[in-house]
Amino acid sequence: MATAFLGPRGTFSEEAALQYIERSGDGDSEMIAFSSFPALTSAVETGLARDAILPIENSIEGAVGGTLDLLIHETPLRIAGELALPVRHFLITAPGIELAEVTEVASHPQALGQCRRFLERCLPKAAQVAALSTAAAVEETVASGDRHRAAIGTARAASLYGGAILAHDIQDVRANLTRFVALAREDHAPTGDDKTSLGFTFKTNVPGILHRILGAFAEAKLQLTKIESRPAKGWLGEYVFLVDLEGHRLDPAVASAIERIRDDCERFLIFGSYPRFPLETLQHLRDGPNGT
Amino acid sequence: MATAFLGPRGTFSEEAALQYIERSGDGDSEMIAFSSFPALTSAVETGLARDAILPIENSIEGAVGGTLDLLIHETPLRIAGELALPVRHFLITAPGIELAEVTEVASHPQALGQCRRFLERCLPKAAQVAALSTAAAVEETVASGDRHRAAIGTARAASLYGGAILAHDIQDVRANLTRFVALAREDHAPTGDDKTSLGFTFKTNVPGILHRILGAFAEAKLQLTKIESRPAKGWLGEYVFLVDLEGHRLDPAVASAIERIRDDCERFLIFGSYPRFPLETLQHLRDGPNGT
Repeated sequence: MATAFLGPRGTFSEEAALQYIERSGDGDSEMIAFSSFPALTSAVETGLARDAILPIENSIEGAVGGTLDLLIHETPLRIAGELALPVRHFLITAPGIELAEVTEVASHPQALGQCRRFLERCLPKAAQVAALSTAAAVEETVASGDRHRAAIGTARAASLYGGAILAHDIQDVRANLTRFVALAREDHAPTGDDKTSLGFTFKTNVPGILHRILGAFAEAKLQLTKIESRPAKGWLGEYVFLVDLEGHRLDPAVASAIERIRDDCERFLIFGSYPRFPLETLQHLRDGPNGT
Repeated sequence: MATAFLGPRGTFSEEAALQYIERSGDGDSEMIAFSSFPALTSAVETGLARDAILPIENSIEGAVGGTLDLLIHETPLRIAGELALPVRHFLITAPGIELAEVTEVASHPQALGQCRRFLERCLPKAAQVAALSTAAAVEETVASGDRHRAAIGTARAASLYGGAILAHDIQDVRANLTRFVALAREDHAPTGDDKTSLGFTFKTNVPGILHRILGAFAEAKLQLTKIESRPAKGWLGEYVFLVDLEGHRLDPAVASAIERIRDDCERFLIFGSYPRFPLETLQHLRDGPNGT
């Protein structure tokens, strides 16, 4: 069965899907690209794919609203896994070109912005050209064979399109991580080191209601790893609260906290329980000279 | 002194600035357009403008990350006012054109998406053309004089560029509101019906710390009108929590709650106190047949 990801090939999302499959130990899994987030969830709902990889938050830019809104309002799929990936940008050209020849750098505007310091220092005179995606920039730059052009993209795109990597890790911020989730028809069985994602709205907007609900988690000594709000889409100031906590929904402490708060909520959504990604394995990015 | 807004003229942000000035009863205020959020805050910091109007959240799309991040990480400006504005889209042509002649509709892709139902029903065969902004679409459509073209934009843009309004309120969702804030060097004196916006990070990430902090507000019976998180930009899972509550920071109940929690926080930011916008005056949008 296939894992669906946001294409085209050579994007950061494809790297996440590849790593997710590798971590799952499922060497036989195929990959299938779709062009929008809703297409990804539809692919899993209709059996075209076993699971789909979607970005859910970035350590600099914040929540990915499109993914959260799909979970809250549209799809019955569950979160069955998570993965955090450092955002790494590479300077890529057609083979056999040197930095001194480059007078033009193409990429998605967000990637150009994330490499501002490198571009100012190492290519101060190069013109910056916007492209639809980092993958498209790499593909076009390599295909052109133009000695004056470079692109910013992933190592995967360089490899796919036959490009040469002139420089690696050219992004301004080293500790720039994106967290992806795998959505599937069922969430994951307990492993002993899990997380659970929940969403809820309140029946009444009385002072202290959020405090009371968080109290159920605090008393059970459950560690919240994320809390945020998304618009309920009804009226300004009405929110769906989203909480990630350590533990599996089948753990007794989590299950009893959920039972306690369910009656206080208007809507109560269990997005799923899944193995916790070991963020500590990326700690070196934080401790480096550019870490913050 | 001038009020700064995100240009060009004829955008939704200009309408917000006009209404803010009108509500403030300051008929002599000028308006000055800038092309980015950071330019708006710089304009006020350097005395080019007295205040700047920035969108901060939308009832469908959620938080405006750029505005929140400026407040958290960059500008010392305070929130001195707020304003909620319904998103209203209009179908605009050059004068003297009828709906049956229209074969092409231009606008910003987001506006086209927000009017999908109207376009499907009333202009099912019209081609949709992307423009850089709703204001640019209206200006170009009216200037062309083309009998087959229409644009989606604000009533203000129709008036500015001499266009005719064929249809009003063509957006799919009636209860689509954007909240704007006015940033200035000082926040607002107490009026008796105020809100206060705060931000904080924790010294330690112990279970229940957010619960304890919200407890200080709950015990003081302070109504929270918003709580959300933004990345602290240090590491995945580290957040700045943002809270809006009813009351002025100089009210004794608010002041003592702030004193209680300040010591538990690593960073504690008071974005400002300002008169509460009477959201109930827009209640008819919620109660209408398309309200949700």
